Amino acid sequence: MFTPRSIRHCRACGAPTVYAVPVDDNRERATCTACGTIHYENPVNVVGTVPAWGEKVLLCRRNIEPRHGLWTLPAGFMELGETTAEGALRETVEEAGANVEMQELFSVLSVVRVGQVHLFFRARLRDTNFDPGPETIEAQLFAEHEIPWEQIAFRTVKETLQRYFEDFRRGSFGVHVADIG
Amino acid sequence: MFTPRSIRHCRACGAPTVYAVPVDDNRERATCTACGTIHYENPVNVVGTVPAWGEKVLLCRRNIEPRHGLWTLPAGFMELGETTAEGALRETVEEAGANVEMQELFSVLSVVRVGQVHLFFRARLRDTNFDPGPETIEAQLFAEHEIPWEQIAFRTVKETLQRYFEDFRRGSFGVHVADIG
Repeated sequence: MFTPRSIRHCRACGAPTVYAVPVDDNRERATCTACGTIHYENPVNVVGTVPAWGEKVLLCRRNIEPRHGLWTLPAGFMELGETTAEGALRETVEEAGANVEMQELFSVLSVVRVGQVHLFFRARLRDTNFDPGPETIEAQLFAEHEIPWEQIAFRTVKETLQRYFEDFRRGSFGVHVADIG
Repeated sequence: MFTPRSIRHCRACGAPTVYAVPVDDNRERATCTACGTIHYENPVNVVGTVPAWGEKVLLCRRNIEPRHGLWTLPAGFMELGETTAEGALRETVEEAGANVEMQELFSVLSVVRVGQVHLFFRARLRDTNFDPGPETIEAQLFAEHEIPWEQIAFRTVKETLQRYFEDFRRGSFGVHVADIG
């Protein structure tokens, strides 16, 4: 969850922090009043896939908040120790239990309001045996005309799906960089 | 700087944390022993540009550690409140004082060892008047055969430059996703 200026205590020593502009910097950072440690707050990455089976893509119905009950592409926060593609594959396994072959990067969407960057890769489903994890109510394949557009959980997922089907119809996939207000 | 498992105190209340796997999670996270706040640690993004002037690109000689005195493309940590492209443009202005028109995303390089993702955009220099900031000793244009390959500050910059000139020679630019060991 994105809560800027939420660092009230130092992670190193526990003393109170103040927001001040460090020397050689031009932004306020939480700075420890005791040991001087500077705490940076930066955007985080959400990584996921567009898992495709012929003309259909796999969506997951969310079993968790936010947007419980709505549909999403498999995606989640990138973790330390993995590449963007490894994180996207991990989330696809965790949320959909899907067996995919990773393909090219497809979308890079900055969501400034919440301090996130969403990166989706195309992926090819190897079969249609899905085994959704606890975060997912059900996983289901949808052709373009079947997509529940009004029940898509996130703007970045909707924009990625729209661009995906446009490119699919054209028969050529690009990399889409956009800004989600 | 990347220091995993460095959260010893809670940012909310200052009490000590322990690393433990939260309910509904599968990784150890710093968890507050008093208020229960969970502290996530995730990769951060470095954003920059490949500023081009004809067949040449602009490099900056670093006036800061690490890699003081070595050459880099203008780049730095993405901040809250900006898109990937806005961050890349900001760094190009801050480090090189260059006047550029932003172009397409060019490289997305996961640097797992340090918990970073580096994103470089191509950019077109509008003129050759550079005004480097305090982080830069000098900014200079280099054709491919002039690049000081042995004095490049970072692997991601070297890989981006190599791919850039390959694509430049071919006359067609792609988006390059790679993993830097």
